[in-house]
Amino acid sequence: MIAIKKNPTKQEQNLLFERNYIDSVSLQETVATIFNQVRRQGDKALRQYTNQFDGIEISSFLVTEQERENAAQFITRDLQAAIERAYKAITQFHETQRISTQKVHTFTGVTCWREERPISKVGIYVPGGSAPLFSTVLMLGVPAKIAKCDEIILCTPPNKQGEIHPAILYAANLVGVSRIVKLGGAQAIAALSIGTQQVPKVYKLFGPGNQYVTAAKQYAQQLGMAIDMPAGPSEVAIITNETSNASFVASDVLSQLEHGTDSQAIVFTTNANKAQQIKTEIEQQIKQLPRKEIAKKAIDNSTIIVFSSLEECFTSCNEYAPEHLLLALDSAEQYSNKISNAGSVFFGHYASESLGDYASGTNHTLPTNGFAKSFSGVSLSSFTKQITMQSVTKQGIEEIGPIVEQLAEAEQLFAHKQAVSIRLKSIKQ
Amino acid sequence: MIAIKKNPTKQEQNLLFERNYIDSVSLQETVATIFNQVRRQGDKALRQYTNQFDGIEISSFLVTEQERENAAQFITRDLQAAIERAYKAITQFHETQRISTQKVHTFTGVTCWREERPISKVGIYVPGGSAPLFSTVLMLGVPAKIAKCDEIILCTPPNKQGEIHPAILYAANLVGVSRIVKLGGAQAIAALSIGTQQVPKVYKLFGPGNQYVTAAKQYAQQLGMAIDMPAGPSEVAIITNETSNASFVASDVLSQLEHGTDSQAIVFTTNANKAQQIKTEIEQQIKQLPRKEIAKKAIDNSTIIVFSSLEECFTSCNEYAPEHLLLALDSAEQYSNKISNAGSVFFGHYASESLGDYASGTNHTLPTNGFAKSFSGVSLSSFTKQITMQSVTKQGIEEIGPIVEQLAEAEQLFAHKQAVSIRLKSIKQ
Repeated sequence: MIAIKKNPTKQEQNLLFERNYIDSVSLQETVATIFNQVRRQGDKALRQYTNQFDGIEISSFLVTEQERENAAQFITRDLQAAIERAYKAITQFHETQRISTQKVHTFTGVTCWREERPISKVGIYVPGGSAPLFSTVLMLGVPAKIAKCDEIILCTPPNKQGEIHPAILYAANLVGVSRIVKLGGAQAIAALSIGTQQVPKVYKLFGPGNQYVTAAKQYAQQLGMAIDMPAGPSEVAIITNETSNASFVASDVLSQLEHGTDSQAIVFTTNANKAQQIKTEIEQQIKQLPRKEIAKKAIDNSTIIVFSSLEECFTSCNEYAPEHLLLALDSAEQYSNKISNAGSVFFGHYASESLGDYASGTNHTLPTNGFAKSFSGVSLSSFTKQITMQSVTKQGIEEIGPIVEQLAEAEQLFAHKQAVSIRLKSIKQ
Repeated sequence: MIAIKKNPTKQEQNLLFERNYIDSVSLQETVATIFNQVRRQGDKALRQYTNQFDGIEISSFLVTEQERENAAQFITRDLQAAIERAYKAITQFHETQRISTQKVHTFTGVTCWREERPISKVGIYVPGGSAPLFSTVLMLGVPAKIAKCDEIILCTPPNKQGEIHPAILYAANLVGVSRIVKLGGAQAIAALSIGTQQVPKVYKLFGPGNQYVTAAKQYAQQLGMAIDMPAGPSEVAIITNETSNASFVASDVLSQLEHGTDSQAIVFTTNANKAQQIKTEIEQQIKQLPRKEIAKKAIDNSTIIVFSSLEECFTSCNEYAPEHLLLALDSAEQYSNKISNAGSVFFGHYASESLGDYASGTNHTLPTNGFAKSFSGVSLSSFTKQITMQSVTKQGIEEIGPIVEQLAEAEQLFAHKQAVSIRLKSIKQ
């Protein structure tokens, strides 16, 4: 049963907002061993770990062209069409995220600008398990494709028959993944970080995973690898009032909580009756769910908080900094300026989180655990770099030179000063 | 004496390109102890460490309003003017980096967009030492100011008299730093990560530092803190040919090498005579430098590489992925599309790296150690988050709903499907 709390103090809020975030420092030794083995033995180590952890013997990790071509046969036309429609929407939204170049003249003869370049090799991890997470392939593959990354390497664990689910292959074909590798766990992250005979080394790692995968990404990061963002359990905050539809809100709470027993939902409301209705609806709807045992446990992490004003709801919610934020309110968009920390925001009664998880176009790889205070979700720019550029003419160095000489001298960097002086002198000669 | 290598193999190049990057894993225990002490004892621990490491007794870490107001008196009018002119150029360039919102309709009735928000609290670390690094204050403070961060906390170690250099205070006033803290080392990073009585906890850490500061930032990152980027020694690559001015190129090599004995310069050239001239010029110019002992040691990390074509120079240089890249060539801008990995690029004979270090407007906080393959330098967006947003109308859910139902079912997330179905049903009733 979900708890209802009225006007919790700031300290009480902090307790309610606590996440099931597992610090991966404890797994560091295990992960370091895996990295060392992969560094020493390459593919041989990968085969051993795959045997040990996944219980299968595998010789070639690479999905063949034939396997990729056959994928479409094994999924329905309807699912193909739905995947393609989601692909189109995600592409459309991420296409708007290109950063355009604007040249500025900061001094006469000094021009500065930026140019965008793709990260040439990126790795995408897609977890295994009972369901094929093709949506993750789309969410990470689409911006990689738009960015024009040269190589997109996808690692995902195979099933007991050594196969990858056709829906994953179908989505991977759509986004133009260069190489699909049948490999999961920390060993996949190690292979992408180091490079082996069959798995190329990449420059940035993306994707969700279990605690070993997460710990391996953090370990890789310590070695200088770029990663998408630190990972924690999924979460939603929903701001409601008397205009909210209790059964819609309950369905959104439950769609969050079915993710895992460590998931969390925080409902804010200004209306105590609505709080009660939402609670009742959750209790009704949960009975129908196949994953109700998971959701029931996750309810213990979750709370309905009643405040006297929407203002208080927003203040508290910004402190919570949710991954997903639903504003289940009439004319919800008027409140957008009240939001300072969130991963992705859903406005209005019809904006269910599921829409953004799959198909509205926004990315579902988002900051959890309060990281929305400092991190953005994955976007096109996660797959690119901005290189700053500057050109300087003879007049330019004459304008800016004496200023730089002054500043370099004050920082006691005389060779920095000299690099300017030598040029100014050559002009005067 | 700088080495000249002709047509090195790929393997030889990799050896020449090796950086003096120190993995901070070895310092992790030291840093963890400092974090734990600061967590337990707050300011008391900060006082102890300041006494132990900096050899001074300090009661209040905060720079007073009076100290800030007095700063201008202690630096020359010329230096004030130069700092202000640099401030203006850096502001002008970073102002162009705002990301504009564009709304897209991915389905009829489904609208997606992004809104930029500042990271509310940021921490800036400025190293101590003999020279006041006010340029770092500008490079990190200006984008923080443009981003409208609520709190900008600057930590920098005081001198033996417990004072901060007036040029740092002057620059901090200019960019509107909220609080200046007389605190250095790993304990400063710990304080900003955890929060103490006098030092607020921040959500993102910026700035260079010694190996302890670097290790502390990495440790903080493992705990979920956002940081600007991993740090390594500074470096430059210069691409030259028969049109290059050997004495200009030598001056740029030396301005890089005076940073530290671990600095590195790689000169690429298509002209063996030019290689020799540059070498001779370096030997001449180094004699004049106050920091020649440092530069001499750094020369051992540095090489002049002769290739037969500019194409080979660019290919090799992209593999090197330098922090700074100078194209000391006639009509240099025509080669911009050859560059795929670099932090900041300088086009033309007059574009000395010093200009970008101080005043041209580009940021000098840049990816080292080959990180330019996956990281950008600091920019306005380093101080902001992009929040994705979506609004959905009744027609919107009717359009997108059936697609999401299909996808959620295929991923076996039935509560996700139900959140859509419940809305579609309510419309049909």
